[in-house]
Amino acid sequence: MHIDLDRTQSEPVYRQIALHLRALIESGALPAGTRLPPSRNLARTLGVNRATVTAAYDALGTLGVVEATVGRGTFVRPCALTSSGSPSASGSPSASGSPSAFGSPSASGAPSAETPASFPASTARNSSEPPELGTTPAANHPATFSRGIDELLRYPAREPVASDHPHAVDFAALYPDESLFPVTTFRRLMAEILARRGRELLQYSAPEGDPDLRAYIAGELRRAGVQVAADDILIVNGAQQGLDLLLRTFVDPGDPVVVESPTYWSVLPALGFYRAEVIEVPMTPHGIDTDVLAAALATRRPKLIYTMPNFQNPTGITMSLETRRRLTELARRHAVPVIEDDYEKDLRLLGDGLPSLKAIAPDALIMHLGTFSKGLFPGVRLGWIAAPPAVRERLILAKRYSDLHTSALVQAVIAAFCRGGHYERHIAKLHRVYRDRRAALLAALERHFPAEASWTRPDGGYALWVTLPRPIHVPDLLAEARAEGVVFTPGHYFFNSDRGDNCLRLSIARADCAAIERGSQILGRIIKRRLRAGSDPDNRIRRAAAHALPHL
Amino acid sequence: MHIDLDRTQSEPVYRQIALHLRALIESGALPAGTRLPPSRNLARTLGVNRATVTAAYDALGTLGVVEATVGRGTFVRPCALTSSGSPSASGSPSASGSPSAFGSPSASGAPSAETPASFPASTARNSSEPPELGTTPAANHPATFSRGIDELLRYPAREPVASDHPHAVDFAALYPDESLFPVTTFRRLMAEILARRGRELLQYSAPEGDPDLRAYIAGELRRAGVQVAADDILIVNGAQQGLDLLLRTFVDPGDPVVVESPTYWSVLPALGFYRAEVIEVPMTPHGIDTDVLAAALATRRPKLIYTMPNFQNPTGITMSLETRRRLTELARRHAVPVIEDDYEKDLRLLGDGLPSLKAIAPDALIMHLGTFSKGLFPGVRLGWIAAPPAVRERLILAKRYSDLHTSALVQAVIAAFCRGGHYERHIAKLHRVYRDRRAALLAALERHFPAEASWTRPDGGYALWVTLPRPIHVPDLLAEARAEGVVFTPGHYFFNSDRGDNCLRLSIARADCAAIERGSQILGRIIKRRLRAGSDPDNRIRRAAAHALPHL
Repeated sequence: MHIDLDRTQSEPVYRQIALHLRALIESGALPAGTRLPPSRNLARTLGVNRATVTAAYDALGTLGVVEATVGRGTFVRPCALTSSGSPSASGSPSASGSPSAFGSPSASGAPSAETPASFPASTARNSSEPPELGTTPAANHPATFSRGIDELLRYPAREPVASDHPHAVDFAALYPDESLFPVTTFRRLMAEILARRGRELLQYSAPEGDPDLRAYIAGELRRAGVQVAADDILIVNGAQQGLDLLLRTFVDPGDPVVVESPTYWSVLPALGFYRAEVIEVPMTPHGIDTDVLAAALATRRPKLIYTMPNFQNPTGITMSLETRRRLTELARRHAVPVIEDDYEKDLRLLGDGLPSLKAIAPDALIMHLGTFSKGLFPGVRLGWIAAPPAVRERLILAKRYSDLHTSALVQAVIAAFCRGGHYERHIAKLHRVYRDRRAALLAALERHFPAEASWTRPDGGYALWVTLPRPIHVPDLLAEARAEGVVFTPGHYFFNSDRGDNCLRLSIARADCAAIERGSQILGRIIKRRLRAGSDPDNRIRRAAAHALPHL
Repeated sequence: MHIDLDRTQSEPVYRQIALHLRALIESGALPAGTRLPPSRNLARTLGVNRATVTAAYDALGTLGVVEATVGRGTFVRPCALTSSGSPSASGSPSASGSPSAFGSPSASGAPSAETPASFPASTARNSSEPPELGTTPAANHPATFSRGIDELLRYPAREPVASDHPHAVDFAALYPDESLFPVTTFRRLMAEILARRGRELLQYSAPEGDPDLRAYIAGELRRAGVQVAADDILIVNGAQQGLDLLLRTFVDPGDPVVVESPTYWSVLPALGFYRAEVIEVPMTPHGIDTDVLAAALATRRPKLIYTMPNFQNPTGITMSLETRRRLTELARRHAVPVIEDDYEKDLRLLGDGLPSLKAIAPDALIMHLGTFSKGLFPGVRLGWIAAPPAVRERLILAKRYSDLHTSALVQAVIAAFCRGGHYERHIAKLHRVYRDRRAALLAALERHFPAEASWTRPDGGYALWVTLPRPIHVPDLLAEARAEGVVFTPGHYFFNSDRGDNCLRLSIARADCAAIERGSQILGRIIKRRLRAGSDPDNRIRRAAAHALPHL
């Protein structure tokens, strides 16, 4: 494929590529179902940056002309130029017969025999399933599901990785070790509060949350330099609901949303449900790549930026002060709202914390998201959003019509827990435990991992990110390690596109020092053996994937 | 306005009306901002049923040609024929200057001076508010919110009605009296379970919910003739989240959804968020009007039917067996999924229960929604959905990306509460209490309310529905009653359109027998006085509203 690019034009190069491809599609030269060349190949052919080709493909996706599917590639859509915006498009005759971005394969009543044979069975899992409505008459009715839910269903299943090995080493889970839970204190406070305020707290309550808990959270944020009052805080059922409410409040189908790449894996399907166009901006050792971000802001007008400045998930990287300043300045200049997910806020193990984005730029539109899941108990399902008034007003409505409110009883108990100094004491305990575990992991990796591997050295949080030399295929590595009782999270979980195959996230949340040593030894041994063997069948894929994080 | 209607055409009459109006709009004869004639007037002029005109207006709304606003009327939209489907329509120059269905008035950075002066200030509340982003630079940025959230924000605020009178009589709240809460038992079980399983239950858990609670709920449903297993149950944060997840799973913007009219008031803004087209099908004394429903199914292809067969909110009406059979038969024939909201399932006070829709039609696509909020504690935020596999699979995904899961601790305590027989005993106690209150209210209404008023006589649940003779304007009545310490929920809360002004919902959930007598006496006195005065300024509106429930 050849495209005449004119770098002197005011039209950006990615748009030139997109327009050329659209013309080919409209002319029929690229019929529905055609797979576009992998972005890397086209970039090489055209002599442009791969990100430029990705941007062109993403733009075509937004136009509804092509459809990108995780792990499969980018395909020309059927009736590409007419379907967007028409609620009945998925039911129209011209839309059947090949995969549709908005169609409802599992609900169409017909097995998806149209799925191109080239789709690997493993990633096509969901859409190749037969409809499951049962064998009753209603099973064959034409009821279709919403486009968002079908988009969600088409995401490859990314289950938390676990092991049933009797002496398993769990490097996968990012949730705190329950052996450290302060259950006794929680239980005592629960009993006291139920005795004193049971009737009141088991009744309906306000969508915005418990006043005392909101005041406590606002006070903690003010101590960290964020100018907020209790009124600015909305209590939610953990950070995941906070994220969902924020997406509800900002994102319409087709809206571009910036995420870091790699990113928290649950944000990707969530964006899929809202049918956002995901713009993956690479991580650097100092946080999100602000040069790429600046380019994306200039050309793509994202609706929202989602970032984790502290102990980023999965890399463990803390955004530098310089990057924080650049990011907030860009957000302000382009007037783009930012979700600052500070999910491990209190888990800094070394050194001083940096000011949050919201503290640095009180005049930008920054929503600060927090949770008790990592520092205390995930099971209480408690998180919060600090947001400016116009956003908060909408978030409260979104919360109210999502589930009315979060349990007032649980909020009151956690407020009492925090007010009584128990949270601070518990965090101090976690610091002691996890400082040791962090040191143990870094030492064990030095000892057992091959010299060609590299990893981050986070100042806090539970996880770090390992990049392996090219010939190692991490999903295969996981299968082999799991057989020996060691589990971790494979790198591809954290990308929306075909990357991360040579990366893995290791978490110390639920592995003590002995387990860390044992697990690192086993993993290092397997990696070294696979490196020596070096006979992976499809080297090309691994080589491509090895570039996933050029900066790390 | 004259329209030539041809009843011999295959084109339904409502479509003939819609097409005629669209032609007038396209020709410029009805420019943007024009208010269409009230449906009642046009119906009279054309000699058709009002529902036919409403259907035509709704169809034009779906096309994006007109915009209906609660309490204001139906208006021709700006750039009506180009805006749908384009994410940037609300930002286009041609869309400014007059109200837009999808624009973001509060976020546009400009006060909505364009709001037609004829909009009454009270219902235009939200859109006439100045933007609230503060006074910082970011305040004026062009970031827009999602269309759904702006739709939600434009709904008139329907706050729960409350009184701060020292001896208030609360006929408004539909939540159980906290003086009856079995707090001591709950507290004991909480302490026991935290001691035994605290670490496990404060950890993350599965999105579908606690196995034991799911098994208990499935067992209860089976006892009522519904063929379900524990696997068919998804635990949610109360019925409101159940509803939200179901709407997520089924509804795309523009999809028609049938609700009973009047209906649960929180479902209307929720449908607004999903930008559904609401089809209000009137209630009869036997439940939803299946004749109107049949017509709506034939002409409008609704995506979903939302119904409350037992003690319908707000009317208290229980759907007859005959209506249950017709409804499920219609749903089956038209292959339309049904949400059966059985929110007061265990609160039957008199006689035997009728089989649920799901029991009657196991082969239809019926999602059975339940909650512990009315029979036990609202504050635990626990409800469930029983759904067929294809729906459940999607609901679990929706739940997972909404908030991961519902608190496992709370689920385990409620499971133990139910397994220990405490729920059954508590329900028996509620039956004793509310049977007396029900009798007290019916007797008091006979004694104190004017003969011209009528009301339902529900067999269970907390509420009944009063229809007053025409000259009474219920919102004014509420203001006067509130001054004397009596509150209730005004009828217009339960309609999406301009109706219900002569109706009110009276709930005995939080009023004991003495309060019921006192409150009825006060209300009856005020109503009688206002009837005698009969000098309401705008009689026309009252007369129209008096037809809200012709069957009752």
